[in-house]
Amino acid sequence: MAGAGGSPDLAAASRISETRLWQRHMEMAAIGATAKGGVNRQALSEEDARARALLAGWATSRGFAVSTDAIGNLFVRREGSDKGARPILTGSHMDTQPTGGRFDGIYGVLAGFEVLEALEDAGQPTRRPIEVVAWTNEEGNRFTPGAMGSAVFAGYYPLETMLAAKDAAGVTVGQALAETLRIAPAPLRPGAPGAAIDGYVEAHIEQGPRLEDTGHTIGVVTMIQGQRRFLVDVHGEEAHSGTTPRAARKDALLAAVDMVAALSRATMDDEDTLRFTVGRFEVRPGSPSTVPSHVQFMIDLRHPDDKLLDATVMRIHEAVERHRGRCTAKVTKVSAVPATPFAPPVIDLVRESAAALGLSHMDMPSGAGHDAMHIARLCPTGMVFVPCLRGVSHNEAESATPADLAAGARVLAAALVRLADQERSK
Amino acid sequence: MAGAGGSPDLAAASRISETRLWQRHMEMAAIGATAKGGVNRQALSEEDARARALLAGWATSRGFAVSTDAIGNLFVRREGSDKGARPILTGSHMDTQPTGGRFDGIYGVLAGFEVLEALEDAGQPTRRPIEVVAWTNEEGNRFTPGAMGSAVFAGYYPLETMLAAKDAAGVTVGQALAETLRIAPAPLRPGAPGAAIDGYVEAHIEQGPRLEDTGHTIGVVTMIQGQRRFLVDVHGEEAHSGTTPRAARKDALLAAVDMVAALSRATMDDEDTLRFTVGRFEVRPGSPSTVPSHVQFMIDLRHPDDKLLDATVMRIHEAVERHRGRCTAKVTKVSAVPATPFAPPVIDLVRESAAALGLSHMDMPSGAGHDAMHIARLCPTGMVFVPCLRGVSHNEAESATPADLAAGARVLAAALVRLADQERSK
Repeated sequence: MAGAGGSPDLAAASRISETRLWQRHMEMAAIGATAKGGVNRQALSEEDARARALLAGWATSRGFAVSTDAIGNLFVRREGSDKGARPILTGSHMDTQPTGGRFDGIYGVLAGFEVLEALEDAGQPTRRPIEVVAWTNEEGNRFTPGAMGSAVFAGYYPLETMLAAKDAAGVTVGQALAETLRIAPAPLRPGAPGAAIDGYVEAHIEQGPRLEDTGHTIGVVTMIQGQRRFLVDVHGEEAHSGTTPRAARKDALLAAVDMVAALSRATMDDEDTLRFTVGRFEVRPGSPSTVPSHVQFMIDLRHPDDKLLDATVMRIHEAVERHRGRCTAKVTKVSAVPATPFAPPVIDLVRESAAALGLSHMDMPSGAGHDAMHIARLCPTGMVFVPCLRGVSHNEAESATPADLAAGARVLAAALVRLADQERSK
Repeated sequence: MAGAGGSPDLAAASRISETRLWQRHMEMAAIGATAKGGVNRQALSEEDARARALLAGWATSRGFAVSTDAIGNLFVRREGSDKGARPILTGSHMDTQPTGGRFDGIYGVLAGFEVLEALEDAGQPTRRPIEVVAWTNEEGNRFTPGAMGSAVFAGYYPLETMLAAKDAAGVTVGQALAETLRIAPAPLRPGAPGAAIDGYVEAHIEQGPRLEDTGHTIGVVTMIQGQRRFLVDVHGEEAHSGTTPRAARKDALLAAVDMVAALSRATMDDEDTLRFTVGRFEVRPGSPSTVPSHVQFMIDLRHPDDKLLDATVMRIHEAVERHRGRCTAKVTKVSAVPATPFAPPVIDLVRESAAALGLSHMDMPSGAGHDAMHIARLCPTGMVFVPCLRGVSHNEAESATPADLAAGARVLAAALVRLADQERSK
C-alpha cells in the first residue's frame, strides 16, 4: 500500500503500520492486565501513570514534545511547518473500567500516535502541529464525573472543583494527579487549557454492533446522542410475607416492576433508536420473607433528538404515577446531556477519507459519550469508529482486529493531514 | 376477676397478672435493647445467654426445675401430682431478628411462665407436669435453618448436623451453645430429646393485621400454612446502554420484571389467601450504563392448602418461560414446608377457653412458621395468637398491649390446665 495515492493525506495513511499499532496495544494492555484478558487501569492510578510514562517514552524517542495541563491531560506534539498555526488535536483516553478491555480509549490515543509516527517515518511535514492527547478520567469510575479532563479543557467543568473530587478512599483528583506526575513527569503545556485549536478527530471502537452487523469497517460519526438520567424511588412498607394479605401490602417491588415494564413498552420505537435502559435496580430490605419497602432504580435514556428525549420525560412521570398503587414514588432528574452534533466539514472529511482509501463506511451517531462531545464546544470536531467484536465493551472480553484498528488509523491519518494542511484562513 | 368460674382452668386463668407479665417483658426487652425501642438478641449470643439466665433465676426462685437438652432448648418444669405422667409443654423462643421487637417469641415463653406462676400463686396442682420451653434459634438469622431447636427436639433435623452449623464468623452452634451454657448453666434434661409429651400449646403475637382489623383479641390457630420457595435466575448479556439497539439486547431485568408482574397477577385469589412475595431481587452488574446480564429473585409462596401450592408451581414455570424473551432462565426449588394442621381437640380447647373467658376470638391459620409446626409431629398441638400493632413484626416498632398479652396468657392457662388435668388414658 506504500505510496498509494498522490495526495499527502493518502501518503500518510499508507505509512500506517498495522503490526506496530497492534504491538503498541499489546504493550499498553500489559499495564493493568487482568486474568481474564482485560485491563484494569483506572484514572490516575499507578497503572495509569505507568501507561503515561510508556507513551511519553515512545514520544520523546521520536522527538515529539510531551506536556500535561492542570487537570493532567497528556499531550504529545509533532510540530508543524507554520510556526504560528494552531494545532489539530486527536486522541482519547487511557483509563479503563475496573473490568475493562484492551481497546476502549487507548485505541484513540495509539491510533493518533501511529499517525505521528507514520508522518515522521515519511518525513512528511504538516502545516499545523498535530497533538495527540490522552484525556484524564474519561471513564468516571474512580472519580466522577467522567470525561473530566476534556470537560475541564473545554471550560465546561471548573478546574478547582474537579481537582477536589474524591474517590471512594477519600483521595482527591489533585492528590492522585500529583502522584501520577511523580511517576510520569511532564512539563506544563504552554497556554491556558482550551487554548485555541483548529480541529479535533477522535478514533474509538464503536462499542456497539452496527458496523459488525452491517459489514462496514469505518463508522463516520455524525453526532453523539443526547442522554437523560432519572432516579425513581418507590416507597412502600415492610411486612411479613407469610402473614400480610395482599390487599394490606404496600409492595414497592410490585409497583416498580410494573413501572419498568410499562416504560419498556412506552419507549419502543419502530426505528429502534431510542435507548431505554434500567441498569441499576435495588430492592430493600432484600429478605425473602419480607415485603419490599423500597426500590430505587435508574433510567438511562438516549436519543439523537433532544426534543424527543424531553418529550419522553412525561411518559416516565405518567408510568410512575399510574403504577405506584398504594406506594409513594418520586422521580428525580439526575443528569441531562444534550445531543452533540459534529461539524459537517469534519464529518465530510472522515467520509471522504474512508472512501478514498476504499474502506466500506457508514454514517452513524455515537450511542456512547466521548471526550469529543466536550471538545466539540471548542473547534470543528468529528470521530472515526472501528468495529469491536459483537459490540462488547466495558468488558474484559472486548476485542478488535489488527486490520480494523489499522484501517481506522489510516482514515484518521488522512483526515488529520487534510485538517492540518488546510489554509489558515479556514 | 379472682375466683372467676368454678373450674380449675378458669381459676388458673383468673390468677394471671397483667402487670407482672408486662414487667417481665420489659425486663427481657432490656437485654439487647436497641436505640429505636426494639431488641437485638440473636440466637446463642451473649444477650440470649443473659435472657436464659434471667428466666432460670425467676424459675428457681419459684421452685421450678430448670434444664436444657443437647441443642440448648431451655425447660422450666412445674411438677404434676401424677408422678408417672408425661408433661404438657408450652413456650416459644427468646432469640430475635437483628432489628427485632419486644414480643415476637419471648411472649410465648413469658406467657407460659406466667401460667406456672399463676398456678403456684393459687397453690393449684395439675395432674401432669407443665413445662415452659424456650426453643433454640427460631429466627434462623445467625444460624440457619430457623426453628432449629424444636426441629431437633422433634427429630426432624439431625442433632450433629445442627451443632456443626456455622454463623457468618465461622462459629458453630456447638461452640456458641457451650459459651451460652457457661453464662447460663443448666443441668441436662432427663430423657432423650422428644421424649414423650402429651400436648403443646404455643402463644405468639399474630405478626399479621387480621385480629386488629376485625377487632378480635384471641386468634384460635387452626394450622400453619404451607410454604414453597423458588429461586429464579435470569441470564442475559451485558451491553452498553447507549450503543446497543433494543433488538440486539438480552436484558435480564426486563425479562425478570415481566415475570414478576405476570406472577403477581397469576397468584391473585378472590379470598386473598395465597401469599405471593418476591422479597429478594438482585440485579447485576448494577451499573446505570450497562444492560443487566443477570437477575436472581426469590419467590415465597404460602397457602393453607399444599395441593394449591403445588399447582402454583406450574404457573411459575409458565410465566418464567413465557417472559424470558432472548434470555435464559432457570427455576430452582429452594424449600417446601408442608402445611401443618393442628390437633382438633387442642384447637377446640383454645376456642372454648377463649369463649369461657368472654374474649372475642376467631379461627385463623398462621401465616408465619413457628416452633409448633415441628412439635405437632410429636403430640396434639395448638397455638394462641394475640394482636400486634398493625401486624408489624420483625421490626423494632413491634408493639402489643399489656391487656392483650394478659388475655392470651389467660386462654393459655385455661387450655394448659385442661390438657394437664385430662385423664391419663386420653
